[in-house]
Amino acid sequence: MYTINENYLNLQGSYLFSTIAKKVNAYKEEHPEANIIRLGIGDVTQPIAPAIIEALHKAVDEMGTAEGFHGYGPEQGYEFLRSVIAKEDYQARGCDINADEIFISDGAKCDIGNIQEIFGQDNVVAVCDPVYPVYVDTNVMAGRSGKFDAEKGGFENIVYMPCTEENGFVPAFPERHADLIYLCFPNNPTGEVMDKHSLQKWVDYANKNGSIIIYDAAYEAYISEEGIPHSIFECEGARTCAIEMHSFSKNAGFTGLRLGYTVIPKDLICNGTSLHSMWNRRHGTKYNGAPYIVQKAGEAVYSPEGKAQLKEQIAYYMENARIIKVGLQEAGFTAYGGVNSPYVWLKVPEGMGSWEFFDKLLNEVQVVGTPGVGFGASGEGFFRLTAFGTRENTIEALERIKKIQS
Amino acid sequence: MYTINENYLNLQGSYLFSTIAKKVNAYKEEHPEANIIRLGIGDVTQPIAPAIIEALHKAVDEMGTAEGFHGYGPEQGYEFLRSVIAKEDYQARGCDINADEIFISDGAKCDIGNIQEIFGQDNVVAVCDPVYPVYVDTNVMAGRSGKFDAEKGGFENIVYMPCTEENGFVPAFPERHADLIYLCFPNNPTGEVMDKHSLQKWVDYANKNGSIIIYDAAYEAYISEEGIPHSIFECEGARTCAIEMHSFSKNAGFTGLRLGYTVIPKDLICNGTSLHSMWNRRHGTKYNGAPYIVQKAGEAVYSPEGKAQLKEQIAYYMENARIIKVGLQEAGFTAYGGVNSPYVWLKVPEGMGSWEFFDKLLNEVQVVGTPGVGFGASGEGFFRLTAFGTRENTIEALERIKKIQS
Repeated sequence: MYTINENYLNLQGSYLFSTIAKKVNAYKEEHPEANIIRLGIGDVTQPIAPAIIEALHKAVDEMGTAEGFHGYGPEQGYEFLRSVIAKEDYQARGCDINADEIFISDGAKCDIGNIQEIFGQDNVVAVCDPVYPVYVDTNVMAGRSGKFDAEKGGFENIVYMPCTEENGFVPAFPERHADLIYLCFPNNPTGEVMDKHSLQKWVDYANKNGSIIIYDAAYEAYISEEGIPHSIFECEGARTCAIEMHSFSKNAGFTGLRLGYTVIPKDLICNGTSLHSMWNRRHGTKYNGAPYIVQKAGEAVYSPEGKAQLKEQIAYYMENARIIKVGLQEAGFTAYGGVNSPYVWLKVPEGMGSWEFFDKLLNEVQVVGTPGVGFGASGEGFFRLTAFGTRENTIEALERIKKIQS
Repeated sequence: MYTINENYLNLQGSYLFSTIAKKVNAYKEEHPEANIIRLGIGDVTQPIAPAIIEALHKAVDEMGTAEGFHGYGPEQGYEFLRSVIAKEDYQARGCDINADEIFISDGAKCDIGNIQEIFGQDNVVAVCDPVYPVYVDTNVMAGRSGKFDAEKGGFENIVYMPCTEENGFVPAFPERHADLIYLCFPNNPTGEVMDKHSLQKWVDYANKNGSIIIYDAAYEAYISEEGIPHSIFECEGARTCAIEMHSFSKNAGFTGLRLGYTVIPKDLICNGTSLHSMWNRRHGTKYNGAPYIVQKAGEAVYSPEGKAQLKEQIAYYMENARIIKVGLQEAGFTAYGGVNSPYVWLKVPEGMGSWEFFDKLLNEVQVVGTPGVGFGASGEGFFRLTAFGTRENTIEALERIKKIQS
């Protein structure tokens, strides 16, 4: 008889955000009149910007004509999008990345989930703790994690790098050799950042140790301070040790349109095999390209009108972040992040657990956030709020949170 | 140092259609004036039908408003699409499939490539020969194939089921036990079909032997004859042994819009673990749903206007198929398929290889098709032409082919 991939049996509970959705739905069923404010999942709320809507309509019209119809596109993405990304996101920042090193996809989550496939089964994976669950779960599915160790609060074979108040949420190098190191800055969930000097040290470390850094740059558009790298390729030597993922979800509201990209420099060679070629083969075999109309929408993100409109959209969310952080501090909480990122990481009241605080917020004031422990053991005692709500809801949520404190 | 997934080193050559594209591009560079007709890759040419364009515009407008904006959707797809599929593609045909057994995705190719992940490493894979390369290559990448055996013309550990003129292109049961059996009917590349009685025997075989049939139904919309199953779930007992993939690419021209779905019945249980739950977990972890606007386009496929327009579109392609088949026969070729499928499978002239015939067609009359051997050893001596061109090009291509024969 056929067998299943038994690594799946090592997965813990169900996916964090599904669990939250279930809890919220259960509450709604019991309290159908409740006005719940969701600052939990990192989903945006502002409509797609007019310049992008216009590009979408235009592309849809093309698809309805014999001359403008686009069937299968290049699996790697259309040249028009790859080159504008290379120019605007890399070359304009002094990063040596070419258009043919950029692979367009239907989202950073998919790429981050799939990238581990091109690496050997025996690679040791290191992740920050707390961490976006996808890095861990996809390696569990692939059989790199070993069993879950309840005492450790993590998987046997995964190296966890705690990000705590003590280290300013910037991890120390892993305690033992790791082959694949997942880093995400501006960080999800803590909202904190790594400066260029520190990131350079990671690049040097990876080059010295023969490690690959898988760098999740999904939140780079929220960086407001100088000296914080927007891309790992701003660091010297990153072309021989780093892969980077970008999303259009957070900078342009594409959570429901689905677009992202991955940069694999051609200098990444392992015993004569190019990682770029491997990913190219994977993309060509298991993927068929992002929709033409969505790639045209992506192109509009870089138009002068698109840029201006998205700058406003990000400013809107960052004002929410400020409101959350200041509001929390006024309510007596300690809060991190929210300056270079849309996430605020708050410390829950002494003696309370993350999920306990989740239930309290939901039950008492109908505000939904994300329990820090859902992101890993070191997230216990913390709680994530996102700036992606509407202004009205954000203000109202903070008013409510202030009440539970008093 | 990190290591790569060495299974990739077992992959043969590059992806078939990339190789063809390279050959065609090289020819074009040498003969920039050449008028090349492509009946090679299975890409459609008719524009998206008006009812679908209308649905797309409407959905795009929604995305531009605060009330109509859709962010992250359910990873499994929107209920509106899952239920219309369950009703129209299954329940209307007497198949017992529910909406929550349908997983929407960005295309059948992705699902077919990814489905093997939920199965154990030790499963034996059986495929038809010739075969759509994705079934094989994704299992090579996963380490189930062993090395390529040049003498056998296939991989050591893969069970090949020849589809030949002698067996009417319907395979016999595998010569040794296989756990995962990939079947595609109407078949790509042969264009031939399996009747319901024969498919029922496969379902019985799978249930008896503890095998899973992965059924690729991408071409079902082209079935024109009675007694040919549109879904494997028309067969009794399929709920305990079959997974089915559908594409919107061929029935509605979505090759550039990207939409498909996979059906995993809840009755598929392996030692207490539900394959449905496993795929649900995979979808939730590595995927973020198809774009809202594309799912709305998919819904329009089932509207009365959409159905009427697509019926015409399919009739158009099937008239091309008839023209190809009759034209080939007039030119003295033996040709199969083309009645319940958009593919015609022709026998190349005695003593000539598939690639030789490819080069001859390209060089002498500038017509591009797909060499049968590119789909597997038993495809040697055959050649695939597709009905997805324009009428004008199809007629012209056949006129040209007639010339090389005389």
